Amino acid sequence: MVRINDHYLKLKAGYLFPEIGRRVRLFSETHPDAPIIKLGIGDVTEPLPLAAVQAAHEAFEEMSTGQSFKGYGPEQGYDFLREAIRAHDYIGRGVDLELDEIFVSDGSKCDTGNIQEIFHQDCKIAVSDPVYPVYVDTNVMAGRSGEDKDGRYAGITYLDMNAENNFIPSLPKEKVDVIYLCYPNNPTGAMISKEELKKWVDYAKKNNSLILYDVAYRAFITDPELPHSIYEIEGAKDCAIEFNSFSKNAGFTGTRCAYTIVPKALMGKDEKGNGVSLNSLWNRRQTTKFNGVSYPIQKAALACYTMEGKNQIRQLVDYYKDNAQIILAGLRKINFSVYGGEHSPYIWFKTPNELSSWDFFDELLHKVHVVGTPGAGFGACGEGYFRLSAFGQKEQIEEAIERIASQF
Amino acid sequence: MVRINDHYLKLKAGYLFPEIGRRVRLFSETHPDAPIIKLGIGDVTEPLPLAAVQAAHEAFEEMSTGQSFKGYGPEQGYDFLREAIRAHDYIGRGVDLELDEIFVSDGSKCDTGNIQEIFHQDCKIAVSDPVYPVYVDTNVMAGRSGEDKDGRYAGITYLDMNAENNFIPSLPKEKVDVIYLCYPNNPTGAMISKEELKKWVDYAKKNNSLILYDVAYRAFITDPELPHSIYEIEGAKDCAIEFNSFSKNAGFTGTRCAYTIVPKALMGKDEKGNGVSLNSLWNRRQTTKFNGVSYPIQKAALACYTMEGKNQIRQLVDYYKDNAQIILAGLRKINFSVYGGEHSPYIWFKTPNELSSWDFFDELLHKVHVVGTPGAGFGACGEGYFRLSAFGQKEQIEEAIERIASQF
Repeated sequence: MVRINDHYLKLKAGYLFPEIGRRVRLFSETHPDAPIIKLGIGDVTEPLPLAAVQAAHEAFEEMSTGQSFKGYGPEQGYDFLREAIRAHDYIGRGVDLELDEIFVSDGSKCDTGNIQEIFHQDCKIAVSDPVYPVYVDTNVMAGRSGEDKDGRYAGITYLDMNAENNFIPSLPKEKVDVIYLCYPNNPTGAMISKEELKKWVDYAKKNNSLILYDVAYRAFITDPELPHSIYEIEGAKDCAIEFNSFSKNAGFTGTRCAYTIVPKALMGKDEKGNGVSLNSLWNRRQTTKFNGVSYPIQKAALACYTMEGKNQIRQLVDYYKDNAQIILAGLRKINFSVYGGEHSPYIWFKTPNELSSWDFFDELLHKVHVVGTPGAGFGACGEGYFRLSAFGQKEQIEEAIERIASQF
Repeated sequence: MVRINDHYLKLKAGYLFPEIGRRVRLFSETHPDAPIIKLGIGDVTEPLPLAAVQAAHEAFEEMSTGQSFKGYGPEQGYDFLREAIRAHDYIGRGVDLELDEIFVSDGSKCDTGNIQEIFHQDCKIAVSDPVYPVYVDTNVMAGRSGEDKDGRYAGITYLDMNAENNFIPSLPKEKVDVIYLCYPNNPTGAMISKEELKKWVDYAKKNNSLILYDVAYRAFITDPELPHSIYEIEGAKDCAIEFNSFSKNAGFTGTRCAYTIVPKALMGKDEKGNGVSLNSLWNRRQTTKFNGVSYPIQKAALACYTMEGKNQIRQLVDYYKDNAQIILAGLRKINFSVYGGEHSPYIWFKTPNELSSWDFFDELLHKVHVVGTPGAGFGACGEGYFRLSAFGQKEQIEEAIERIASQF
């Protein structure tokens, strides 16, 4: 038998969402008539923007004739999409990028999961707690975590987030090499100001750290003054990689398109201390292990930047934002301590009666047939918290909140 | 600055195909009117099967209404596609699989590149020489290669392939843990018999090795007696993972869909010697770092298994096979020593006048404006050989062969 990567055995049982799926399936099998409402996994429910659908149709027509057929595209994405990303997501925010600083991919989960491959095995990793599990698990798999001790990996630096610090952790007390940050935050729904984010950039520059900044939820930011990209902070191009996605704005969770920004100014160092471009390393990683995003999908993503596409996306996002307001108002009415939901589709709250997160998950599922996400699934500091997602149909959201209010 | 993964610095300059692209661009800039014919990269040129296009259209229509919209799908692929793969690619060949032994992905390049993550750092890797560069480069990145010595990595076992052994290497003399095999072979176009393949399965079982078997070109096998899957060989489910793709049969190089088979019988061992299911490790890898293939693309892949889709694919493959015959006949006529092309879209031949592979590449490009792939790009044993691809338009292939014949 071949020797396996033993680090995989350090992973905790099951990735969070499969575990939720398992419990829901089990309940459904014994309660086939229960009208379950799922507000657990952060998955969109509304149709794709028509502009994207139309563009995909046209692209598949192109694929059906010899003149316009497309085989392998550039692994980094077609320039038409990279140009649109640069123009609409960055230049409009005062951030200038070169095209080859933009890498189109099939998902931010993939990119945030794969990016650690280009770093040294010994890099010290810092994550917030609670945290999107992919950041941690992919470093566990790579052998950077050390052993699990009481629910935390000894080799990873956890930065506590809680109501007291507005879900923005204090700067690390020890020197760390790589810091994962996500604002609007998954799972807490919290947002960060430019002033607060600047502290992280300053920390990173001072400590030669790298920030991995996830803005998958940026479409939900309500206040234009808040940072939509870390590169709005001076100096961030020297210390940050940024991830964004079409999943949560354009509803591409089942369609798959995302992108990652690796500025050319960004340097790492090799064992001799020589500088090495992280952009060139990521380019090498992507050209070797990835073959680009499906052409029609890239065309669909491009259509999200047309006037028509932008309007349709704005309507989609507004729809979910209204849902978030319904959840916020409903839970406040029954005196839950609620957070997030203003610049984010996620509402984070303290479980009632000091229930554990998973106990509340089971109660919610069994008593009112609503599926949410237990905070403990995102880390030790998530214990006693719970996440509801505003991705869902308005009527279902209203119904779910009524049911919760009737019971708690 | 963050410490980088130093193993990346052991990679040879540029992945083969980007290097070819660079030379072609350079030539085109100085010779903008040269009518270049590209038979280098193994990229299809003919339109997608209409059945696939039609299915994609229908799926995008589903995505445009609330009732049928699809968000996140299973990371492992939809059951509808896994069932079709099992029924058409395996049961028809006498191989029974369980659905959860099939993992749908966005490319065999990704899967053959990522699979090594689940193996131990110290695993001894064997590859044929010449070889598809991804097998080697991904192990270099992971730190399994040792240093480069005269064009070969000290820590990798190279299995020589040449005309003398019909491009089927001898069994390894030293014990190896993981063996990459690809038949129909890329780049040499060679095929293997069941008897020969059985020797590898027997070797793997005897030596506790694992075979990674790439059948991306199986649609080109002409003789039904030849193995279309390694699982046609008894015992292979205990020692082999198999990779297949929709790229080379259905022309999905720009559309992106593939799959990987990890039998549940397949065990690895951890540091204590306990057995661990490789299927469960790969499932964990995929659920953590991948988010499934775009729903419309999976529907397009499904359509490849309808009667209509199968007929259209058969026509596509026959078209390229005819091209291969044109190349074979043309090069034989000018007394080139040619190989492959019978069960493969690739024709492999010795360069004339004992030119080096890259010198012949440059001559071909500059003198007759034909782009091929230098054998040396696939490994030391590829030196003095050259690959032409039958993927192209018939008229272009004929023209390319005429030009070559006029010059050599």
